[in-house]
This record gives sequence, C-alpha cells and structure tokens, in this order.
Amino acid sequence: MSERIVVVGFGPVAARLVDELLPAVRSSLVQLLVVGQEAEAAYNRVMVAELGVGRTTAEALAMVDASDLAADGVEVRLGVTVKRIDRARQQVVLSDGTAPGYDRLVFATGSRPVIPNLTGINPDPSHPVLPLGVTALRDLRDAGQLRDAVTAGKRVIVLGGGVLGLETALAAAEEGALTTVVHNGSFPLGRNIDRGGGAVLAASLRNSGITMVGNARSTAVEHNGPDGMFSALVLNDGSRIEGDLLVLSCGVRPRIELAEGCGLPAAIGILVDHYLRTYHEPHMFAIGDCAEVRCADAECAECRTALGPSGLVGPGWRQAEWLAEYLILLAEGGQEAADSLAPLPQEKPGVVVLKARGMNLAVAGDNSAEPWDDESLSVGVSEGTPRRQVAQWADPEHGRYVKMTTRGGALEGLVTVGMPRTAAELVMLFERGSELPADRSLLLRLDGPDQLDSSASNDDPQRTVCRCAGVSGASIEQAVLDGCSSVPEVSKATRAGTGCGGCHGDIKGIIERHFQGVAA
Amino acid sequence: MSERIVVVGFGPVAARLVDELLPAVRSSLVQLLVVGQEAEAAYNRVMVAELGVGRTTAEALAMVDASDLAADGVEVRLGVTVKRIDRARQQVVLSDGTAPGYDRLVFATGSRPVIPNLTGINPDPSHPVLPLGVTALRDLRDAGQLRDAVTAGKRVIVLGGGVLGLETALAAAEEGALTTVVHNGSFPLGRNIDRGGGAVLAASLRNSGITMVGNARSTAVEHNGPDGMFSALVLNDGSRIEGDLLVLSCGVRPRIELAEGCGLPAAIGILVDHYLRTYHEPHMFAIGDCAEVRCADAECAECRTALGPSGLVGPGWRQAEWLAEYLILLAEGGQEAADSLAPLPQEKPGVVVLKARGMNLAVAGDNSAEPWDDESLSVGVSEGTPRRQVAQWADPEHGRYVKMTTRGGALEGLVTVGMPRTAAELVMLFERGSELPADRSLLLRLDGPDQLDSSASNDDPQRTVCRCAGVSGASIEQAVLDGCSSVPEVSKATRAGTGCGGCHGDIKGIIERHFQGVAA
Repeated sequence: MSERIVVVGFGPVAARLVDELLPAVRSSLVQLLVVGQEAEAAYNRVMVAELGVGRTTAEALAMVDASDLAADGVEVRLGVTVKRIDRARQQVVLSDGTAPGYDRLVFATGSRPVIPNLTGINPDPSHPVLPLGVTALRDLRDAGQLRDAVTAGKRVIVLGGGVLGLETALAAAEEGALTTVVHNGSFPLGRNIDRGGGAVLAASLRNSGITMVGNARSTAVEHNGPDGMFSALVLNDGSRIEGDLLVLSCGVRPRIELAEGCGLPAAIGILVDHYLRTYHEPHMFAIGDCAEVRCADAECAECRTALGPSGLVGPGWRQAEWLAEYLILLAEGGQEAADSLAPLPQEKPGVVVLKARGMNLAVAGDNSAEPWDDESLSVGVSEGTPRRQVAQWADPEHGRYVKMTTRGGALEGLVTVGMPRTAAELVMLFERGSELPADRSLLLRLDGPDQLDSSASNDDPQRTVCRCAGVSGASIEQAVLDGCSSVPEVSKATRAGTGCGGCHGDIKGIIERHFQGVAA
Repeated sequence: MSERIVVVGFGPVAARLVDELLPAVRSSLVQLLVVGQEAEAAYNRVMVAELGVGRTTAEALAMVDASDLAADGVEVRLGVTVKRIDRARQQVVLSDGTAPGYDRLVFATGSRPVIPNLTGINPDPSHPVLPLGVTALRDLRDAGQLRDAVTAGKRVIVLGGGVLGLETALAAAEEGALTTVVHNGSFPLGRNIDRGGGAVLAASLRNSGITMVGNARSTAVEHNGPDGMFSALVLNDGSRIEGDLLVLSCGVRPRIELAEGCGLPAAIGILVDHYLRTYHEPHMFAIGDCAEVRCADAECAECRTALGPSGLVGPGWRQAEWLAEYLILLAEGGQEAADSLAPLPQEKPGVVVLKARGMNLAVAGDNSAEPWDDESLSVGVSEGTPRRQVAQWADPEHGRYVKMTTRGGALEGLVTVGMPRTAAELVMLFERGSELPADRSLLLRLDGPDQLDSSASNDDPQRTVCRCAGVSGASIEQAVLDGCSSVPEVSKATRAGTGCGGCHGDIKGIIERHFQGVAA
C-alpha cells in the first residue's frame, strides 16, 4: 500500500527530504506532494546576501529542478499556500482550491525574518509592508534590491549585529557600498561572542571600512526619498542615520502558525519528540527551522539543555535525512519497522563562523568565563570537577583574538577572531574533546608568519570541511581523485559546499593541492 | 690644598662613593670622613631578606672592610650619629662629642622603613618601638628574627604587597614558613603592575603556598604571646590573622631630617639639582635613597616628569660614581674644572623585577592601557602621534601573563609574569626602543616548550645582565675569559651581581656556557 506524504514548505531542508525520499517515490512505495509558497523551487537561502552583492547567480543557488522531480513522480506545487490543515480529515486545504489528503505530513515551513517594531513599518508580522528601500533580505527578489544599491555604491544600513547582518555588511562594504551596522548591544555578535572578542571584532569591522553604531535603539524609519523611498533610520536619542537601503537583519522566527492553527503545541518552534513527531499526532512531523526538538518527558536530560531551533541549515539537513529513512521504514514495514530506527542523535553545540573575505571568526561553546574570574585564577579540582580555566590572546591592532575556555584541559568554549588556522585547530579539538597542549600559546603559532600552508589541522583527512553537510576532507579528496576538479563538481558529488559556502576556500585548497601533487 | 669631604651615612651608595674616591684619598687630594650609624660598615641591605631565610651569610653581604679603608687613609666612624649640621661653621656635630669640619658634605642617609600606624606599635617614625615578633626587616639584626621563624617553620605574616614584601614572602614560604601576605589593594604589586598581571601574579603566589589577603586594612597588632610577643594582625573588619612573626614591608621614606634640620629644602627627598647639589648650598650634595633630583628651573622638562627617589640601588650607584668624579675635579681644579663635567644623565624608567625561585616577573613603563580601551581598538595615527596599542596574553592556569603596550611598534610598557625569556627579550626591546615583530605572539615562543636554552636575547653580548651595577654580558664574559669561575669572583671583578642578586642565575649561566665550550 502506497503512503501519501505531504511536505509543507520547499526550502533547502524540504529539498533534502524530497531528495532522500526519491528512491521510494520511484518505486511507488510512497506518493509525495510538496507545496511551496514561493514561485521558485528550493534554493540556497543562506547565500541570498552573496547573490545580493553579485558574487553568485540565482542559477547557482538553485537546489532542485522542479521538472526533474515531476519526471521522477514527485508532485510539486509552487506559488501555492496551505490555508489550513484539517487534522480530522487528514487534508491540507490549499490556496489553489484543492484539499489533498495525507497519511503523513511534514512541516518544513522554515522561519521568517523578525521585522522590528519601527514607526514607518507595518508591524503585522505575517504580512509586513516594507517601504521601498527596506528589505529583510530573505528571498531572491530582496537580493536584487541589495544588488542595485551595491552596484551604485550607495549607502547601505544593516540593522542587526548577528552573523547574517555582519556577513551582509562585510560583503556590501567589500563590493563598494558605504556600509553602516546598527546594533543594540555594546558589541556586535552579542548573542554568540564574549566581550573581548566582540571588541576586537568591532575594531576589525571598523578597519574594514564599516561604520559601527552600537548601543543603538532604533525607533523609526523615515521614507522621504523619491516614491516614498527609505531615507534614514531614527534612533531613540533623536539621531538619524541617513542611507539608501535598510537591510533588516534582526533574526528569524519559526513559522508555526499552520501547526498552531490545527491545534499542535508549539514553543519557539513546533514541538516534536526525538522521532521528530509532533505532540499527540505521531503521523505529523516537523523538521528544520520550524521544528523544536523537546520531548514531553520532563526528566529527559537532553531536552532540559536543548536550545530551540538552531537556525542553521546543517541540523535541518540531518533531520531531513533521518526522517526520510524513518518514513521509508514506516511505509515498508509499518510502525514496528520504524521503531527499530534509533532516534536522531542530539546536535552537538554549534560552531558559529563568519563567512567573509579577509575576516575570520569562530565561536563555540560557553565563553562566559574570563581569565580574571575567581574560578579561572584557581587551579586544580573543586568537588571532584576540574576548575574552568581560561587562556586569552588579544591583539586588537592586528585584529586578532583567541579565548580558550578549558576544563581538565579540554575545550568548553572557544572564540577566535582573525586567526583562521588557530580557529580550525581549536574547532577540531573542541569537537573531539581532545586535550590542549599545556602551553596554550602553541596554538597561536598556527597563524604565525612562518607557518606553512598546510597546518596540522588541514592535514588531518578526518576533519570536517563542510559543517553544513557534514563532509570530511577525506570524502572531498576522494571526489577529487574520482575526477572532480572544481567546487561545483565537488558539491555535486559530495554535497560539500552546498550550505553556507564558508568551506568553498577549503575545498578549493584541497583541489589545488591535489593537482600540485599530480604535477610534481 | 686637600679638601675635607664628610659623607653622612654608610650604606651601599656611600660605600660606592668612598670606593670611587679612594685614589684621591690615597694621593691626599682629599681627606675623607664617613659617619655610619650602624655598628657595621656598608653591607648589601637589599639582600637582608635572603639572609633572613638562610640563603646567604652576613659575610657575603659585607661591601667594604673598615680596616682596609682605614689603612687607605679613610676615616670611618661607626656607631656614631650626626646630631646636627652647623652650616655656618661647616661642621657636623656628632654623637661622640666631636664636631669635625667639612669643605664638602654628602648626604647618603638613605631611607627608613615606613612603620604603619597600628594600635600596638609606637608610631614615632624616627624611633619606632616594635613589639617582639614585629620587624621591618631592614638591618642584620632583623634578618636574625626572620631566620629563627623560618627555621622553626612558623607562621610569618608579611604586611605589604610590594616587591620586597613579595620576595620576602616567597623566600620564607619556599624555606618552610607558613606565609601570609596582607596588602591593601585588590591585587599585589599595585603600584607597579596592571590589573591583569596582578591577578595572575596573585594566583601564582597562592599556588606557591602563600595565603594572600587583599583589600585588607590593618588596624592593630596584638602581642599576647610569651614576653609580649606578636600574636595576631587585626583588620578593620574585625578579623584577626594569627602568626608568629610580622614583617612590615610598607615601603621606605627618605631620611631627610638632618638636611631639613639645617635648613635645606626637601620634598620627598632632599632636593638636588642635576649636579646633585642641594638648593642654595652648592658644596653640599645628596645621593641615593635620600636624594630627589628636581632642579629649581620650573621649565626643565626632565624634572617635570621626574618621579622622586627610586628606592633602587642602581641609580644610587650611578650617582655615587658621577659625584666622585665631580668631587675629584673640584678638588683638583676648582669649580671651573668641575663645571666641565656633563651633569648626570636622567635615569631611564626602571624595570621592576621580582627575584624569586620559580617565579619570574618584569614590569616597566606605562601599563595603564587595556586592549579594550577605545584608543587600543583604533589603529593608525591621531593628531600626528601613532595610537597606543596593547597586545595581551593571559593564561592564569599556568601562571603566565604578558602585556605589551606599544606606540608606533615600540614598547611604552611591558608586564610579564611567569615568562622569563619573553621578559628578557621585552626588557631589551623596551630599553632600546626597538620595534616589535608585527605578530606579537612570536614573543611568546621564547618561553615555549621547544625553545633552546640560549634564546636570542641571551645570545646578545651587549644586553645588560646586572641592572643594578649596569654590567653587560660581554663584560662578564671577558671576566670569565680572564679567569673568573664563580659568581663571587665575577662580582669582585665586574661588580655584576653585587646589588639585588637577581642576575646571579644569569652570571652562573654565562660561566657554565664558557666551561662547556672549553670542554667541548
């Protein structure tokens, strides 16, 4: 009996789920319907800012070809919204007037940008009306607006000091826009980084030509330009920051209204258990940005420390892969077969990296301790637990900063700014829980002037090169040995580089080293 | 015509002056009278704490032999005090009932310990009466008290977190005493070090087994032991720190009362001009701890930034050497001849080092800037002056800290804790005003685990090995080539190592390298 699966949403995570389900579609084990709100099929939303500054093309961002899917038997409906879900009838009521039924339904509705409550912007979160010259830089159309501003060397204001905001600002500044970042903390990246790293990061951003406006509370947008175009951002101290384009980069919020509308519980995201099943409705699932893994068991240690949706593409892809396997087992052998599958392991704490030319940053774990804290200034063990220790290097003049927080010699947190090789090594040590050398300053040498191109960590074939898709250096080397000679070819063969794009340089390096080796 | 010179005081600086004047005494160019208050001739007061913990002998501390001096024609009166100076008659009125006359008089009265105003201690600064078990550790008798306490493994409390207090505490702890340091700042060495270095230093001291009590205001000493012995130090929060010996290490104050008593102006010390002459009385001089070089010219740039008496033996020795030359020129050729001598050059800013086994510390210059200061976070030039920049390494777990404050690439300040080779290199770069490598972290490598025994700075024959006597590595190597094979022999030949003793290890290293070279 063929099961009917409906996927609501067609972003990168949905695309991965569809891709993994394809064999089951081809063999008619499942029937698959994908409903996408945008006119385009899934594309790499993480790269919209790159598209906006003209560094990539819409074609390169595309992740699937809708007609290929149709040929394989997947039903794709684009430009169609789900109006509501009828749980009693097991139907999705669509904007095209149809109401297809489902046996299994997967929410992959993703998230939407947070639109700040500013005078001059319609605050309705589900239907924000942004003045001309104000964009949340979320879809392909938004990218065009940024592109026009950057090409003309105009004044771009980025509101928000998070990773995406900073990457957008750096890219825009490098491509010629006069760029200002307005954020409300005393340093940018305040949700991720520590104070010291934030100070060095802010200094580096200023040295990159970006005007940094911190501790800023925005109250209004003025749109006194031609045709009501955006003209200035107004702060609560009455000051005005004039510009031609305002990019809102204030975070995202999971799209949960469809799930809530049919009575499913949600917190930040749609609540799901360790099998990605919604509460009370085990044949409905949620994955990606819209899903929050937090089971109903109050005693569950994993869920007590769970942090809500990550907003990163990598964990969503891992959920999509796992769920595809689960759904296929369900279709093949029923619940008993599916129950044999181990639940998806908890995501390891994420590593935050900043993807920008000439600026490197990595943050992971807990970086709240300072070297001057009482705990850091005591050595040894307290009540059976080794004390937390901190080593720190700060050289703001050269845009460099490292903080290593260790317990029993292994990293609990790391911050690096401007030290790419040290960053790579520390991230590897962090992920493996390996012990650091007693002389922590040895790690700084990796970015020393005398360091050869291939550092210890770059040499390790087991290291993860693409964090989004979880691809090791060895897999990429194998792809190169098998004939791939460009990043897109490697991406096609291994999926490495198909997410945030931060590893493109590393992939290129592996390809180049291979061909140097062949030539020599 | 033989000039009669009277030297008031017979400490290390007076001893150097006498030594330099000896040829003129032998040739009867001058008559020399030295009046010393203590029963002993000059000895190395800086080493009294070392004597107190049993690491050296009173014989090794002796700097002159009074009978040798008498044989050379110097009149030495020991155990005699100067009651007053009769400027009109040009006589010193002595406690032995005599009143010898002088043509030139040199104040070398040094300084006395600051006795804090505590209940249970007679506060009269010139005649403090300390209870049994309380000592300022200033003279040979005081050393005996510390020795008894350390030998018996008793509880020693050091009041004061300055260099001498910390050195005393470290030495006492290493030799087996239960040691506590009580100081009133939030970190020790507060007059010299920055907050970060102070925190790491305090942690290292604790890890050396010393109990650190900071932010402490002492109010009283209890002396309820047998025979009224010291029993506890009382703080203003009512707490009591019990102990067997209290070492007062609260700084020193120049002994200026004799000069003031005969009408000479004084500030912190006896005021002298660039020729070390007292104001209004050009045939009276002051050198060493009691002298404050600050000329009467309000426009003098040197004196505007002068810091008062240094309290270090090195500058005093340089004054003694210069003054001996000046006095000899005066005696030989009168004022005109003496005027041909260039005035004593201003002392360079001092380098503070902590002399202790297993703990290294160096501080110099201005270390008030932090890497997070607005100025440090901006690069380039402001109003024609390069901005001040700070690089910092902190690893309190391993007792390591470096702060380099630069302007235009050259050091304006340095702090190192626990990094002896980095310290030596930075001190050399500081004194020469040399530019640092752009990657400041290269300097940390000198104390890396892979560093060979002879670092770059140790190899440089021109570096100053003995800061007190100003002796270079090359001079010491020459002495070794000339046959010296021990530290005392090198000290005798070159004066290196005759001051604070902090360079004894370096001298030993040079000797050993020489004999290894000979053997190989």
